Amino acid sequence: MYKLTRPEIEEYLKKDDVVLFPVGSTEQHGKHMAIDNDAFTALEIARRVAEKTGVLVAPVMPFGYSVHHMNFAGSITLKFSTLVEVYKQVCESLIHHGFKKIVILNGHGGNTNAVNEALREIRDDTGVVVYNVMVFPTENGFGSGSLKVIKQESGGHACELETSIGLALGQRVLMDKAEKWRSPRGLTDLQKKYQRKVTTARNFDEVTEIGSLGDPTIASEEKGEEMVEAVVKELSEFVEDLKKE
Amino acid sequence: MYKLTRPEIEEYLKKDDVVLFPVGSTEQHGKHMAIDNDAFTALEIARRVAEKTGVLVAPVMPFGYSVHHMNFAGSITLKFSTLVEVYKQVCESLIHHGFKKIVILNGHGGNTNAVNEALREIRDDTGVVVYNVMVFPTENGFGSGSLKVIKQESGGHACELETSIGLALGQRVLMDKAEKWRSPRGLTDLQKKYQRKVTTARNFDEVTEIGSLGDPTIASEEKGEEMVEAVVKELSEFVEDLKKE
Amino acid sequence: MYKLTRPEIEEYLKKDDVVLFPVGSTEQHGKHMAIDNDAFTALEIARRVAEKTGVLVAPVMPFGYSVHHMNFAGSITLKFSTLVEVYKQVCESLIHHGFKKIVILNGHGGNTNAVNEALREIRDDTGVVVYNVMVFPTENGFGSGSLKVIKQESGGHACELETSIGLALGQRVLMDKAEKWRSPRGLTDLQKKYQRKVTTARNFDEVTEIGSLGDPTIASEEKGEEMVEAVVKELSEFVEDLKKE
Amino acid sequence: MYKLTRPEIEEYLKKDDVVLFPVGSTEQHGKHMAIDNDAFTALEIARRVAEKTGVLVAPVMPFGYSVHHMNFAGSITLKFSTLVEVYKQVCESLIHHGFKKIVILNGHGGNTNAVNEALREIRDDTGVVVYNVMVFPTENGFGSGSLKVIKQESGGHACELETSIGLALGQRVLMDKAEKWRSPRGLTDLQKKYQRKVTTARNFDEVTEIGSLGDPTIASEEKGEEMVEAVVKELSEFVEDLKKE
Amino acid sequence: MYKLTRPEIEEYLKKDDVVLFPVGSTEQHGKHMAIDNDAFTALEIARRVAEKTGVLVAPVMPFGYSVHHMNFAGSITLKFSTLVEVYKQVCESLIHHGFKKIVILNGHGGNTNAVNEALREIRDDTGVVVYNVMVFPTENGFGSGSLKVIKQESGGHACELETSIGLALGQRVLMDKAEKWRSPRGLTDLQKKYQRKVTTARNFDEVTEIGSLGDPTIASEEKGEEMVEAVVKELSEFVEDLKKE
Amino acid sequence: MYKLTRPEIEEYLKKDDVVLFPVGSTEQHGKHMAIDNDAFTALEIARRVAEKTGVLVAPVMPFGYSVHHMNFAGSITLKFSTLVEVYKQVCESLIHHGFKKIVILNGHGGNTNAVNEALREIRDDTGVVVYNVMVFPTENGFGSGSLKVIKQESGGHACELETSIGLALGQRVLMDKAEKWRSPRGLTDLQKKYQRKVTTARNFDEVTEIGSLGDPTIASEEKGEEMVEAVVKELSEFVEDLKKE
Repeated sequence: MYKLTRPEIEEYLKKDDVVLFPVGSTEQHGKHMAIDNDAFTALEIARRVAEKTGVLVAPVMPFGYSVHHMNFAGSITLKFSTLVEVYKQVCESLIHHGFKKIVILNGHGGNTNAVNEALREIRDDTGVVVYNVMVFPTENGFGSGSLKVIKQESGGHACELETSIGLALGQRVLMDKAEKWRSPRGLTDLQKKYQRKVTTARNFDEVTEIGSLGDPTIASEEKGEEMVEAVVKELSEFVEDLKKE
Repeated sequence: MYKLTRPEIEEYLKKDDVVLFPVGSTEQHGKHMAIDNDAFTALEIARRVAEKTGVLVAPVMPFGYSVHHMNFAGSITLKFSTLVEVYKQVCESLIHHGFKKIVILNGHGGNTNAVNEALREIRDDTGVVVYNVMVFPTENGFGSGSLKVIKQESGGHACELETSIGLALGQRVLMDKAEKWRSPRGLTDLQKKYQRKVTTARNFDEVTEIGSLGDPTIASEEKGEEMVEAVVKELSEFVEDLKKE
Repeated sequence: MYKLTRPEIEEYLKKDDVVLFPVGSTEQHGKHMAIDNDAFTALEIARRVAEKTGVLVAPVMPFGYSVHHMNFAGSITLKFSTLVEVYKQVCESLIHHGFKKIVILNGHGGNTNAVNEALREIRDDTGVVVYNVMVFPTENGFGSGSLKVIKQESGGHACELETSIGLALGQRVLMDKAEKWRSPRGLTDLQKKYQRKVTTARNFDEVTEIGSLGDPTIASEEKGEEMVEAVVKELSEFVEDLKKE
Repeated sequence: MYKLTRPEIEEYLKKDDVVLFPVGSTEQHGKHMAIDNDAFTALEIARRVAEKTGVLVAPVMPFGYSVHHMNFAGSITLKFSTLVEVYKQVCESLIHHGFKKIVILNGHGGNTNAVNEALREIRDDTGVVVYNVMVFPTENGFGSGSLKVIKQESGGHACELETSIGLALGQRVLMDKAEKWRSPRGLTDLQKKYQRKVTTARNFDEVTEIGSLGDPTIASEEKGEEMVEAVVKELSEFVEDLKKE
Repeated sequence: MYKLTRPEIEEYLKKDDVVLFPVGSTEQHGKHMAIDNDAFTALEIARRVAEKTGVLVAPVMPFGYSVHHMNFAGSITLKFSTLVEVYKQVCESLIHHGFKKIVILNGHGGNTNAVNEALREIRDDTGVVVYNVMVFPTENGFGSGSLKVIKQESGGHACELETSIGLALGQRVLMDKAEKWRSPRGLTDLQKKYQRKVTTARNFDEVTEIGSLGDPTIASEEKGEEMVEAVVKELSEFVEDLKKE
Repeated sequence: MYKLTRPEIEEYLKKDDVVLFPVGSTEQHGKHMAIDNDAFTALEIARRVAEKTGVLVAPVMPFGYSVHHMNFAGSITLKFSTLVEVYKQVCESLIHHGFKKIVILNGHGGNTNAVNEALREIRDDTGVVVYNVMVFPTENGFGSGSLKVIKQESGGHACELETSIGLALGQRVLMDKAEKWRSPRGLTDLQKKYQRKVTTARNFDEVTEIGSLGDPTIASEEKGEEMVEAVVKELSEFVEDLKKE
């Protein structure tokens, strides 16, 4: 919607009320990916879904909850409560104009709790149920079938999966700088023993020495294209179903 | 610690600095369990761990984040931001007196995000890393081995697992009122199709007609005892490791 | 109500709408009383009133406004604004389910201003008038007649009155540790001269060297029983009158 | 201080660091007193004390916590939290410039809790202990000896005491409109029976039909002068003691 | 209105609904003017307009947004958000009693953003449009014609304009201390080159060495009277127009 | 900076510490301009300045303070306080990593007060002075000389100036939809008479019927290029001076 004029938006609202709101983050993505990757991915997926379905796309929110990345240069973080307010106020502005079906396309796992809190407050304040989906394929989410292309053991940040998708979407990726995950030196025995069982406010440099997880060195554009296609296809199907509601 | 006098606490702090802080909720637990179950369980597990390890237990926080249960009578909820503040201020009071190793024992999944946000703010404000664990056994958490006793397909609230543990801990359970999960009537096709793939601010009565999930009718005290024993044993081992740090 | 199931609470709400909400604190109580005493007392009095009148009791809020006790180990304090929010949100949750007559039973003088602020905001937000009473006998409040058993000149914290009531209610009291109030050493002349006439943000260690006021050494279970009986009787009469409204 | 120039204040701060901060309210004062009475009184007493002692006076804060008066026209109220912030920020501005001994002269009982909360937060933030006194004589406060001139049974708002002091200070008082307190019609039996024992968020029109308490018809300038003289004398003594600290 | 009784205000509200709310600040005004000047001016202009038009005047808010003056002794500042709340709550109290046409008379440029934010929130909350005017003559505002008496090149604080008006209104002005503006020593080249083109959070001592701008030495009571007369006349005309709306 | 990797940013910070932070808005721009215009312009100018000077550019903040545009479809607004927090937290994240010279490039006049409030709080919290400039040429700002190309009498929103710059920067502009400003019908006499002299919380549809001001029909790419060149040149000079500081 951000490249339309007001009269064009008024026209759209006469016949439809779906809008996609991509949200990302600006944070370090290891040694090989641009720091805008989560915002970039959310916006690119939104554009592809919009192209297929004809719905509008709100501007991407480029800053997210990245407090655990602040020990790595280039990361920008908002406070949790501020981020909830931003999501809420953008959605409530859209609702004010008549958009009744908002789909938040989230490109950063760290935003999830803030998005969910916003969803709850929006429903309690306005009665409108807002939808939240991840733009990366996940086990239980959209595009799950395409996860078979992924070979790394585990990942989650600037990894085989994220890097492949970046390559497919035209992100700036320096493949020659990509490195496989390395555990940080100097973890205590307690940290090692209970890292999975006990939750703490862990900083990302306590989890990875190089800023990324998994194995980005085996990423490829082809893998990325398969995943992007799957996510876009299934998300578009959801949007079509939503339009009919 | 709540049954000690001030001089007794001063004495403890001279030689040790671990404290358990149980947090729960007051919310409907289907047709057969008392509404204080999450607070009750957190406190009972804390007591058993304290008995084994000699560490102190702070009073249980009985109210949690239960906004999704408010369509069922008896549920009490705090706002997310208020709950974060409560967790923070209790922990920071404990830190003020010299407790350096605080373990939050959480009895309610709905509190998790608020606990995590508190953990982050405490670390940023004071430098102290607080630990957070669930008092129910989970796949990746403490007591995972004992999950083999559970036969229901899925659960999560006043289910076979939670009811069994309630029976083992002496909770008030009305087994003759227990019923197997039933889907709410009147879900839309969209809701049914995307319930797992898309996140919304779902109310609990949109997920279960009777207020519980899973199958509490096959719960038993024996199953509960096995799980309680496993959780208490592994948690106590963690606490012992923590004391040595 | 916290030991009831949801259907039992629904049943209660069909015929009655009174609920007691005990609120206390966790703070040092001199050398001889457990730090949970204010929460313990509020809950115990609430239970006795509930037994006599058949009304429900919400879980006790164990943390209060104890900022002036923070120089003594074991005290836990919430901020004023957080505490107001907790009281408000618990009451508004109860109102949401149909409880129209809420009686806050307060066991800690330091909470009074926060309770009163909550009462005002609840009335302005919802129109519901919430009631607030002290669980200790006071000159103008419930159980005033029983104050004749008290012999100390003045008191107010872990004193003859509070200790006697603790003994009567089964609290953990170490009578051999009880000591008569001693003024802190090192007060300035200005502090001594104007202590009563001028209000400041006084810390409790500027008022008492041992953490208690008055004379707990002359406390007895008999005195406590007489006071408890008087307070419970008069409070129960108030609750009965409230039911009839 | 508000009629001084910056260099004059700098000069003062070189040799002294006491400042009086009068706080009042704007609220209905029955049928016969101007609505600015609490602010007016606080300022007038402050001026008289300043004259005797040579200390400075900050501008009077004219708005207070008067939420219970809002059913009577002309009352202006701030929220509790806003008022605490105002008191805090004014005091912290004064502390910033080098005033180390601030005395809040309060002319409105309804402000007391907000003043006290501000005092606590200022002490915790800056270490400075701020002093709070009432400008009206009270049993345990300054000018208590002069209370013997008061003949009404009870009072508290636009009553014999406050009206007499208004007359003595030159306030606009319409003595021919003054009326003795009358209970509001339509109180329920419950309200009448428990008005003193149970606290609620009572509105002032539930306590007095005419907006004032006590008996202003027996007020006189002479009584007022005696009380003003006593309060000013004792307050000035306190200020002199403070200067010497 | 602050010298009226409640019945007198009720009487006024039966036939009219305009009220003036003067807002000022307490901050250093160079070497020659009292620090209460902005509050004093707002109130004095309000009184003169009220006299001409018969409308009521609320008490003046004496504290404003003066954070940039805090390096000069005697300045008191509120935080932006607190000040917005004060303006809002005072106006909403007035609206509550039936005042529908509120005119804020602002005596301090630094308050403008906070006033405007309050105006917006009041309109969004209550639908009432509140009016905001400066009490000093400005190019596009009231009394612009009278600006011809001003000879200084530029000004803005304790300058020829403000000092002349102070003299005309009876403010305490020490003309023998007045000095022409002097640039602070020690400005960097960057500061000098871009002072007008680039906005920063500039402190007032980075703009003027003596705390005032412009040239107060050429101020005179006659100039002040001409400006006051113009502003009062035009403001009164506006108020008369408002009454007829 | 948003297209760089973390190691590239670390490299930059070793030798330089300037960063540009463009901030815009998403709001209706009359009948002929895309609603993202303020964000788009801020980012495009930032890119051109960065290209000339070699400094980094943070992601553009696409949402601003547009509350007065909410009666026109497509506008999205944040609350004032939320926006201040976003600006603050982004800047403080940048400062955290070692950027000491932040220049906010603002593309929306409505953001100015929020930016200024953020600047003040950042300076008070961290000591860092952040710079704020408009990306459109203004009388006293950068590019003022180029304003001679503008012929409309007055403007300010989607006008000759803004439209010309849009054309020069490659924005989506529908010149055939552009219309000259028209006053809204139905303004009251009071509104017309005092529109300039009195400030209110005016909605934009009370100022323009078509959503734009001034005369966009006489806009041209050539005019835009002249202004863009002037602004970019002078801003770049400022940035070069800043680097040398």
